Amino acid sequence: MTDPSTTPSDALACCAPLAREPLTTEQAEQVSGLLKALADPVRLRLMSMVLSHADGEACVCDLTPQFDLSQPTISHHLKVLHESGLLDREKRGVWVYYRARPDAMSAMTSLFATVDGASGC
Amino acid sequence: MTDPSTTPSDALACCAPLAREPLTTEQAEQVSGLLKALADPVRLRLMSMVLSHADGEACVCDLTPQFDLSQPTISHHLKVLHESGLLDREKRGVWVYYRARPDAMSAMTSLFATVDGASGC
Repeated sequence: MTDPSTTPSDALACCAPLAREPLTTEQAEQVSGLLKALADPVRLRLMSMVLSHADGEACVCDLTPQFDLSQPTISHHLKVLHESGLLDREKRGVWVYYRARPDAMSAMTSLFATVDGASGC
Repeated sequence: MTDPSTTPSDALACCAPLAREPLTTEQAEQVSGLLKALADPVRLRLMSMVLSHADGEACVCDLTPQFDLSQPTISHHLKVLHESGLLDREKRGVWVYYRARPDAMSAMTSLFATVDGASGC
């Protein structure tokens, strides 16, 4: 069982938009960990499936049938997403349910935000 | 000299927010290429330096002094960012100048955008 306190929450509090100011070395190390976890086609599809699923939550049983991959392989990718701090998980009954961490999604949104705040609104 | 028409522009036209609908296998392959290029601490720092530099443009001569790395190493990382489609480059005089591709930045912004459109505007 992974202790949630070991997730890299420092990375999730990071950062100002890339276009506002240079990242520090430490920030860049933290953010690259999140991006490495995401930079895989199966994990990107898993993230988008969980995020767009009803109530923003999905079970391994919802996800595995969408892939031509074994359940242990899907569980491995979900573990990488969980350990990076991108997904929360909760066991209910026989299944584990996954949900995106709002702080992780906000960190990504913020990182790629534009700094010309007037545009679009 | 890299032909700009060989940059992976299909990835840059991609995608709806992750939270709106599952990525297709093809979209996930394209986006993972961009994220892999970004998922390195030196390349993240380079992207943030270029994006936040005066006029959104920087020369290798502006960037190299910020790192404890050789110019060939920095040039290698810039080449990865260029070949992935994240940075445009232009040779002027003896230096090569780099600028973020607006379509790449918009693809990233869009990917991590929230879908509760009412917020913020």
